[in-house]
Formats: sequence, structure tokens, C-alpha cells
Amino acid sequence: MLPASNAYDFPLLIKHLLTNASRAHARQEIVSHPNTRLSYETFERRVHQLAHSLNNCGIEDAMRVGVMDWDSNRYLECFFAVPMMGATLFTINVRLSPAQLLYTINHGAPDLIIVHRDFMPLIDEIKSGFERDITIIPIGDGDGYEAWIGKAADRFDFPDFEEARTATLFYTTGTTGNPKGVSYSHRQLVLHTLGLLVGFGVWPGDAGFHRGDVYMPLTPLFHVHGWGFPYAATMLGVKQVYSGRYDPDSLLRLIADEGVTFSHCVPTILSMLLERPSAAHIDLNRWKVIIGGAALPRGLQDRAAEAGICLHAAYGMSETCPFLTVADLSSDDPQIQAQTGFAGPLIDLRVVTPDMEDVPHDGEAIGEVVARAPWLTQAYLDNAQASDALWSGGYLHTGDVGYMREDGSVQITDRLKDVIKTGGEWVSSLALENIASSCNGIEDVAAIGMPHEKWGERPVLLAQAAKGANLEDLRTSVLRAVQSQVDAGALSKWAMPDLLLFVDQLPKTSVGKLDKKQMREDVLKYSDIKS
Amino acid sequence: MLPASNAYDFPLLIKHLLTNASRAHARQEIVSHPNTRLSYETFERRVHQLAHSLNNCGIEDAMRVGVMDWDSNRYLECFFAVPMMGATLFTINVRLSPAQLLYTINHGAPDLIIVHRDFMPLIDEIKSGFERDITIIPIGDGDGYEAWIGKAADRFDFPDFEEARTATLFYTTGTTGNPKGVSYSHRQLVLHTLGLLVGFGVWPGDAGFHRGDVYMPLTPLFHVHGWGFPYAATMLGVKQVYSGRYDPDSLLRLIADEGVTFSHCVPTILSMLLERPSAAHIDLNRWKVIIGGAALPRGLQDRAAEAGICLHAAYGMSETCPFLTVADLSSDDPQIQAQTGFAGPLIDLRVVTPDMEDVPHDGEAIGEVVARAPWLTQAYLDNAQASDALWSGGYLHTGDVGYMREDGSVQITDRLKDVIKTGGEWVSSLALENIASSCNGIEDVAAIGMPHEKWGERPVLLAQAAKGANLEDLRTSVLRAVQSQVDAGALSKWAMPDLLLFVDQLPKTSVGKLDKKQMREDVLKYSDIKS
Repeated sequence: MLPASNAYDFPLLIKHLLTNASRAHARQEIVSHPNTRLSYETFERRVHQLAHSLNNCGIEDAMRVGVMDWDSNRYLECFFAVPMMGATLFTINVRLSPAQLLYTINHGAPDLIIVHRDFMPLIDEIKSGFERDITIIPIGDGDGYEAWIGKAADRFDFPDFEEARTATLFYTTGTTGNPKGVSYSHRQLVLHTLGLLVGFGVWPGDAGFHRGDVYMPLTPLFHVHGWGFPYAATMLGVKQVYSGRYDPDSLLRLIADEGVTFSHCVPTILSMLLERPSAAHIDLNRWKVIIGGAALPRGLQDRAAEAGICLHAAYGMSETCPFLTVADLSSDDPQIQAQTGFAGPLIDLRVVTPDMEDVPHDGEAIGEVVARAPWLTQAYLDNAQASDALWSGGYLHTGDVGYMREDGSVQITDRLKDVIKTGGEWVSSLALENIASSCNGIEDVAAIGMPHEKWGERPVLLAQAAKGANLEDLRTSVLRAVQSQVDAGALSKWAMPDLLLFVDQLPKTSVGKLDKKQMREDVLKYSDIKS
Repeated sequence: MLPASNAYDFPLLIKHLLTNASRAHARQEIVSHPNTRLSYETFERRVHQLAHSLNNCGIEDAMRVGVMDWDSNRYLECFFAVPMMGATLFTINVRLSPAQLLYTINHGAPDLIIVHRDFMPLIDEIKSGFERDITIIPIGDGDGYEAWIGKAADRFDFPDFEEARTATLFYTTGTTGNPKGVSYSHRQLVLHTLGLLVGFGVWPGDAGFHRGDVYMPLTPLFHVHGWGFPYAATMLGVKQVYSGRYDPDSLLRLIADEGVTFSHCVPTILSMLLERPSAAHIDLNRWKVIIGGAALPRGLQDRAAEAGICLHAAYGMSETCPFLTVADLSSDDPQIQAQTGFAGPLIDLRVVTPDMEDVPHDGEAIGEVVARAPWLTQAYLDNAQASDALWSGGYLHTGDVGYMREDGSVQITDRLKDVIKTGGEWVSSLALENIASSCNGIEDVAAIGMPHEKWGERPVLLAQAAKGANLEDLRTSVLRAVQSQVDAGALSKWAMPDLLLFVDQLPKTSVGKLDKKQMREDVLKYSDIKS
């Protein structure tokens, strides 16, 4: 059937996410710490002004605009204005080392970068290494940026174009090799926004994310689009709170003062907040937090539950936009809340053998988690070899290992590269970490596999003890806890660590994940493994 | 950026709606009156078997399969199997007159029709007029169909194809001219499913449609895909109930016995249920009902509220898949519950003048409602002229008249063709009907414009009185009610009807809408209008 000559063939473009947000929520607020409060109507006007300002700086169609800023209304305005112009938003990871930062900027090749003054020293340090001319727009919290966009016209004609056009670009922060560029199209981001809302929103009661919530991200916006929630929150038209530079006490105050009900973060951030003395004086009973980016340690989960926080796990990665799974949000059973959970709408998630055969869905058989979804990165930027490996067999390989239960829910047990292969068994480093982290006096812990001549690898624990803890007692209690799981048959006998080392601080990557590659190097330096 | 050579470029296909439904909800039920209960796992197997059975009958890629059946698991299986094969599902309106039915079958040109035995007499009556060979598969409730699909293999290889492929076809039932064919692609139906779930699902508390609901449609599945909810309910994996032939007492019993919590229907169906004596004995307090297809009369709304039903209005039409707007589902204010409501996600809904200028959003200025959305029919089948008119100015014209409030919510006040144009004023026929239906003793009412030499048109009311009502008293109370609204300034003085006729039954279309064309003809026969 031929469409009518004048029919509108609706392309999935980011600008369509704004259509009803500004119309229906003219009086709802977007709050940006320390001193900005915008109505949605004003926010939309500013998106238009930002586009004009970028255009005045020579930015057109298909160019790339980098951003180095704290979470703010400014960043959210870039989330919309830059792709809506047809340009690519390059969300630069400000936590990278100067060398990695320079690498990603030269590789990602932005035409312009908007830089908060806090990051100007970083730019000054590396700019002599820039391989192209880049316009730098230095901004501040209230000044700079306001002067820049304030005088621009407030009606930009955002064009239609093909939905496959690239909207965003950023770099993954793996522990091996150079950062790799991943990008997403308008279509992918619009579908991800709908998928996220169906996956997190369609729950009974107060569970999940819905129109009544007040949203504050605790995952920086440069990290996988703040997990996509800023787009979803804006389309829904809820109150949003952007916190500027993450300062624990200020974050807690914002939660209380603005009535924040929904956030998402990695375990480290939540742990950091709960450790503040001021946390005890704030009512966190209405706060729902989605934990991702790393496994949810049982100890942290218990501390959060004591504080009244409603915590659930979710799962995804830089290459998946990121939404893949979420735990049963209607459950208040801690075991179920911490599960990797169920695949979101449309997502075909499998647990497979190296030959791409499904493992039995018995809650035990281990394999690699692979996926198809309408919002998975189709390639690494200019890296065909890594791209083909990512999509080996026509499914995106997460590099995570886990099992599927009979009910279809998935459990990640480890990173493929962190699984400890010993004596012909696969021992989950996460399982060991969970047991150890439940012991009183253990603040942070990592399990790694160290090379072993006879057994392939052997498990080693690195732990950070609470101040004043008796290390020998602690060592005994951790090893006893592991042994009791072995005795109970929950762990293979090969899981007993050969070594438990106490350290001041566990090495982490720029996004707060355990840096096991560094740990293996450190351990090799410090000790000889029994062989 | 080039995709990896092996990347899966996820086309939006109906088969993807099933991916997690069957995996995660193997033990959830699909109930079909009178005696079928299926797990989702069994349901999925039957979808594969149905595809094989159709294939054995010669159905391939791009052919058309018609269905004439009551709401049932069989129909739901067709919703999936037929488009998933690559064929087009033609949902035949069994309520059409034999002449219209024959017209749509010849125009829609199915290769095969699955016909419930209740509709075989209808087929026998018209089949001599078929302009092509059509395979007829006669089925019954438990037999026929079961024997047909029961022996088929249970693994059909549903292929990938382009998402723009036509998935469904059906005919609009306008009151003028021949029925017009509208069709939807896989992409449109997948996007509609996501949009429906975001629009109806992302609400706090128990409001809207969510994973905890038990779903039973009360809009026949042949009518705009049962408003799209069967696809959404299946993707979500909730318990579903299909009721067979609509029998009021049986429907009420199903609501009670199966714990139905969510339905949708036109006002007539709800009214029919509430009139049954057995309704008084059933607890309807957990039942949420979405009303669409016609305005929600205040009288019916009050009766439903008394019964404890949670009622909200929504808006759409055959040409819009159908979701366009829904009232604020979190409101329990009857005024707000009955509003046409807010445009759903991504939907660009406007109220415009004949020149396509937006009317002021002041809750007063009237214009035609037009829309863009990712799921609007792109054309009428083989009718370029009507298609171009439908999409005049690049927006789909709903043919409905209304206004927009400052908060962005819309109110439909009439059909463009039903507005009574009198003395230079536009009088809403719906406004008159609302006033009259609130009078005790009025069971059903319609306001129409009758041609008038001097004033263009003049309003006439046709009413159906309750049994035993004193018609003269009733006439006085209706006219007094209209006069008091005129006196209060809520209605123009031109709105006073010239005539109030009592009739045994108001003429309705095959889908239960007031047939005002028929009424105008009837009134011309019965009376001379004052001039």
C-alpha cells in the first residue's frame, strides 16, 4: 500500500521526546544545583537557544560537540540540542587519565568542546596534543554558559533527518587496551527511552519509575547517557534534580530538600552516601535506587535496607545503551531485589556456550550472556576487529558469565575474564566477594585468579579492612565463612583462597569498578603464590 | 560508523513481542471462555502450530488471512502467527451488513478466512459474490480449530523481514460511503505497543495498566486490534481473559471468577453490563475500565462510580492504531477522569484552524484535532483521494473537533460532521447529549443538526426513555436542563433544541456508535422541522 503523498512517515528522532514534555509540564521543575530552577517550558526554550549558540560557533549537521561538565541542566540541554541539530553529542569521560582523555579526544575528533571551568586545567594540560582545531567554550555554573546562550534566538528549526543518524558518542573504559568508541543513533535512543519506561515503569504500586517520581541521577551523565534516564524523565515530564559535582553531603541534602524519590548509581556511590554521618538525619524511606555497573554487595544492601532505601539491581553496559535487565521491582525480598533480573521489553537475552548453544535454564549451568535488542551499539568506532568480536555469532557478547533460572531471570556471576578457572572448575570471583563482604570488618573486597602452574589459576582475596579491625581475627572469619559455604556444597572446594591480602585501598577504574588487572600486577609484585 | 559485519540490526517485528513473554511467564494463564486455559509456553507453541497449519493450506509470505471469530485464544494466536509468517492479518468486522461484509472481503482480498461456525451462515449468504478463490477454514470453540492445528509441528521458523511490511488490515465503519481499508506495519504495531504501555502503564499506585493486572478486552479483537492491548498484555505476560461471544451475564461472571482488573470498551457495553441485575452481586471495586470510541456520558460515569468501577476516558480511532490520548489516570476527580486527556508518548497532537494554525490553548477555542505519531495509518487501501484528504497539510485529520487546555490536555467536543452549525454558532451535539443524559428517565440520547432555511441548521434531540417514564414530564425536565445551561452562559442560546423526539431505540452503527446519518433521515421522514 502506498502512503498518502502528504503522510508523515514518523522518524524516531530525539526531538520527538520533547513534544509533550514542554507542552504538558510547563510548570514542572528541572533543578540544577546550586541555583538553577527551570520550568520545562524554559528548558525547551534554552534547548533552542543552545542550538543557535552552537550554530553561531560554526556547528552544523554531522559535526561533533564534546561536553565536559558536571551533571547539570546545561548537560541535559546538550543531551537534546546537539543531536536535535543533527550533530553528534560526544560525552567526554572527565575521570580518565590525561593520556586516555587525550586519546579519546583525538579519536573522537570533536569540532567543539563545552568545558566547565573545573576541567579547564585538564584541557590546558593536554591541548598541545590535539590533532585538530577544536573550538573550546569555557563555561561556569551560572556565568559563561548563560552569557553564551542567553542572547540567542529562542526558536531553532530542528530539521527532520534519517533516524539512523548518529546522536551520541562516548568511550568505554575497559581495563585493557585503549578506550573504545561506542555510538547510538536517534532511533536507538528513542527506542531505549520507551524500553526503559516499559521495563522500569509498568509496575503496580509505587514500584519502579513513574510520573509521580522526582528523579536525580547519581550516575554521571557522561556515563552511557546517565543510563538513559534523563531522556526518559524528560519525556515523562517529571521533576528532575541535577546535582553538580558529586559531594556526598550536598547530595543527601538535595534528596531531602527536593524530595528525590528515584535515583540510580554504582554501589560505590551509595556506599559513600551511607557512610556520611548526615545520612542518619535524613529520611530515605521514599527513595528508590537502582544499582548497576557492578554487583550489589549483600553488606551494602543490608545497610541500605536499614536506612529504608528501596534497592533493586539492574544490568547493562556501555555497549548496550545500557538497559538489558532489571530485578523484579515489585519484590521486597532482598534475594530477589539483588538479582540481575529479567530482560527488558523486546530484548532477546541468552546464556550460551562458546558454540552459541543455550545452556539449560536450571539456575545452575553457566555460560556467557549475549543479547539482541533495538538499542545495542552496532560497532566500535573505527575498530572493525573488536566490533566483529563483539557481535560474534550475530549476538552482542557482554563478556559476562551467568546462568538463567527456569522463570527466565538471569544471574550474572562474574566477568568472563574474572572467572577463576582452577582445577578444571569455574569459580565465581563474585561469589567469593559476596561471602567475604558479609563478614563484619570487611569494607571492600576483590577475588582474583592468579596463574598457577598445576591448577591453572588459584583464588586470591584482596580486602580493605575497617579502621581498627584486628586483621588476624578478620582473616580467620573470612576463611571460615568461605569454608562453611564449601562444606555446605554451595562452593567448589577449589574456591578456598590461597591467600588473603589486606590493602589500604583496592585499585579501581575511572568509573569506580574494581581494576582486577591492576590487582593481578600488584599481587605479583607483593607475593609469591604457593605452587 | 559502519556496523560490525555480523551485528544484528534489530527490525521492529511482532515476533519480538513474544521473546520474553513465553520465557518469563511459562506459568501465567491465557483464559478463553468457555473452557480453554493456556500457559504462555503452550500459547507460544500453538502460535507455531497455527503458522504450520496455515502454511499447509498454502499461506505464504505477503498473502492475506482473514479471521471471523469471537474474542478467544484462537484470535490472539492469529494476532501473532499470521503477521509473524510475513502474511497480513485481515480482522473482518463480523457486525457489518452482508452487503458491507461482501464489499470488504472483495476489497481486502484474503486468500484464506478462518470462520467460527457462528458466522458460517453469513459466509454462505455472501460467498457466491466472492470475486476470487478463498479457502474457508470453518472452526468451532473447542473442535475444528484444535483438530486443524493440533497435529502441526511446534517449531515454525519465523523469518526476519523489513519492519515496514504490512501486518494487519481492517475496514473503518464510517457512516458515509463504503468502508475504507486501513493497515498497519510491524514497525507501527511494535511502536504502538511500547507507546500504549508508556501511556497507560507509567503511573503511580494501582492506576493504569501494569504487570499486576488481569486483562479482559471488551472491545472486539476485530476492532483496531482490540485497541492494541492484546499485544501489550502478551508482551507484558499478564493473565488474559477472552470472553467468546459477548453475553452480559457471562462477562460479569468472568470478571468475578477470573479476577479481571483491567478492561476497555465503548460506553454502550459498560451500560449494558451495569443494567444487568447480576451486576449488583459482583464486586467491581478492583475493576479499571478505559472508555473510548464515544464520549463518556456523565450519567453512565456516575452509575459506574457507584458500582466502584475506576473509569477513565481515552481517545483514538481506526486510523490511529488507535492510541492518541488518555485522561490523567491518577485522578479520581470525575471531571478529569472523563477528559479526552493528554497525548501519549511521541504523539504530536494539535488543535488547528482550517489553515492548520494552532488555536490558542485556552480551553475554549475550537478547532479540528490533527496528529502525527509513529503508528498512524499511512493511507486508505487503494483510495488515494481519501488518503490525501486524511493527511492534508502533513497531519492526520481526525475529523474531531475540540479544544486544548493550557496544561496541554485536549477535549473533544464533537465530530466535525456532527457539530450543529446554527445562527453562525457552533453548537456541540455532545454538550447537548450530556445535559439530556443527566436527566432521570433518559436512557440514551442523541443531538443532531437538521437543515434549516434561515439558521443553517437547528438542533433536534432524539431520546430513549426509561420504561414507564412520563414522556411529557421528561420532555419538560430535559428542556429545562438545557435552558438552565443557556441561562448560565455555558451554552449559546442557539443550542435550545427545536424538537425532542422519543424513540424506542436509537440507530447505531455496527460498532455501537450513534448513527446520526440514519437519524437525520428518520427525522425527515417523521416530522417537519419548524422553519
